Amino acid sequence: METVSTWKSHGGVQGVYRHKSRETGVDMTFSVFVPPQAKTGAKLPVVFFLSGLTSTNMNVTEKGEYRAACAELGLILVAPDTSPRGEGVAGDPAGGWDFGLGAGFYLDATEAPYAANYRMGSYIAAELPALIGEHFPADISRKGIIGFSMGGHGALTLALRNPGAYRSVSAFAPISAPSRVAWGQKAFAGYLGQDRDAWARHDACALIGHGHRVAELLVDQGDLDSFLHNQLRPDLLAEACAQAEIPLTLRMQPGYDHSFYFVSSFLGDHLRWHAERLG
Amino acid sequence: METVSTWKSHGGVQGVYRHKSRETGVDMTFSVFVPPQAKTGAKLPVVFFLSGLTSTNMNVTEKGEYRAACAELGLILVAPDTSPRGEGVAGDPAGGWDFGLGAGFYLDATEAPYAANYRMGSYIAAELPALIGEHFPADISRKGIIGFSMGGHGALTLALRNPGAYRSVSAFAPISAPSRVAWGQKAFAGYLGQDRDAWARHDACALIGHGHRVAELLVDQGDLDSFLHNQLRPDLLAEACAQAEIPLTLRMQPGYDHSFYFVSSFLGDHLRWHAERLG
Repeated sequence: METVSTWKSHGGVQGVYRHKSRETGVDMTFSVFVPPQAKTGAKLPVVFFLSGLTSTNMNVTEKGEYRAACAELGLILVAPDTSPRGEGVAGDPAGGWDFGLGAGFYLDATEAPYAANYRMGSYIAAELPALIGEHFPADISRKGIIGFSMGGHGALTLALRNPGAYRSVSAFAPISAPSRVAWGQKAFAGYLGQDRDAWARHDACALIGHGHRVAELLVDQGDLDSFLHNQLRPDLLAEACAQAEIPLTLRMQPGYDHSFYFVSSFLGDHLRWHAERLG
Repeated sequence: METVSTWKSHGGVQGVYRHKSRETGVDMTFSVFVPPQAKTGAKLPVVFFLSGLTSTNMNVTEKGEYRAACAELGLILVAPDTSPRGEGVAGDPAGGWDFGLGAGFYLDATEAPYAANYRMGSYIAAELPALIGEHFPADISRKGIIGFSMGGHGALTLALRNPGAYRSVSAFAPISAPSRVAWGQKAFAGYLGQDRDAWARHDACALIGHGHRVAELLVDQGDLDSFLHNQLRPDLLAEACAQAEIPLTLRMQPGYDHSFYFVSSFLGDHLRWHAERLG
């Protein structure tokens, strides 16, 4: 692992790091904020923040406004990239922004040519936490996960697919039922092919329908989000959680859209919620 | 004035606006955050944030992390651009980033070709506050000003040159004595020519030496800032304030550099300090 940059911020250290990933086969860049509590020598709980389509690790690093809350609560925040990148990594053959580079959908692709590098599921759930545990003052047994949009899909599905891996999971405007919306259908067809059972293993609502569980969920959603009704569908998540008796706190936030101006307004709240559950 | 974008954020509205400026002769873009307290119909105090070399209004808008504090304190924050821009606006003939576009130095140029458009002094001190008073729920008699680097120079000199205009003034890593450092010498020679008396009217330390006063100053400075000793010189500001008996709180912040990761760490503090003085 190499250090790309570090900045002191809010009493802690905001860094950007790079490593050669075993899973994706390429160099992956990610951000880590280590709060000032690390100076005590204690191992701190970790929250992973998964970003949405087109983002890199830097979007939430620059616009997320999370460092004040992490410094108050003693949380490490890790922000990975949204896909493999670099020479030889296949993108969207149609040149779209909603598939391929910047759009890894937090799953392990099975279709050529994507299967070679698009292994964001295993990368986020296993390789990256192990790396964080090795190089940072992190107690990776105390992990939470938050995601925004495509990253919300990632947070929900990784928590549902990996029981016990995350003590807390929350999302901003998640793609809740990707099998049923255009973004998800394009991504799943490209990465997983036409096997609908494979799609269901990466669809939060379908996973819940098939018996996967998390202890509880916190979701914020702007009611002026232009993707609310056609891509995000929190109504389907609410229905699935109600049937499965998963306690879901779904907060429709009046006037908010699908930007980091929305996410940053409530990310401090989410981090407090995670901190209570991460001890 | 036209609205470029608005986003709900932290219960208020973050907007970007554009208007044809009488002073600069071109369209100027600026950001305004109006906190939720505006819903009461009250006129709110305003803090102007002046950015540094190469910035636009968007740098602090995206990276400043000020909205939580403004929403708590009931402050409007206005972030202007750092120079005129657009067709016909002269830049640095040498192509540098420290003069011309993005580097207006918050003064009214007297030298051709800059005198035509580079009137950031009058723009920030008079035209923009009047526009804000007209279009936003702002009490422009209660104004504070904050600046970062070149913007710190702007905040200090505009407050010193316009007695009573600002009830509160603070800075992050200000260029404190521009006549004595390379950035300032290049800018002053280009905008003001070789008249050293003119330079002194735009140099915080020289203004203080010539009897200009502010009630008090708050300045934060990172001790790992690579521009500290050659361009910023807070030691000269401390000396000038001591001789003039201006109460200066100069906080050397250990480990911090010259980035928005530094500014955002303490901008909430500054806003609380301004709010106490703006009533």
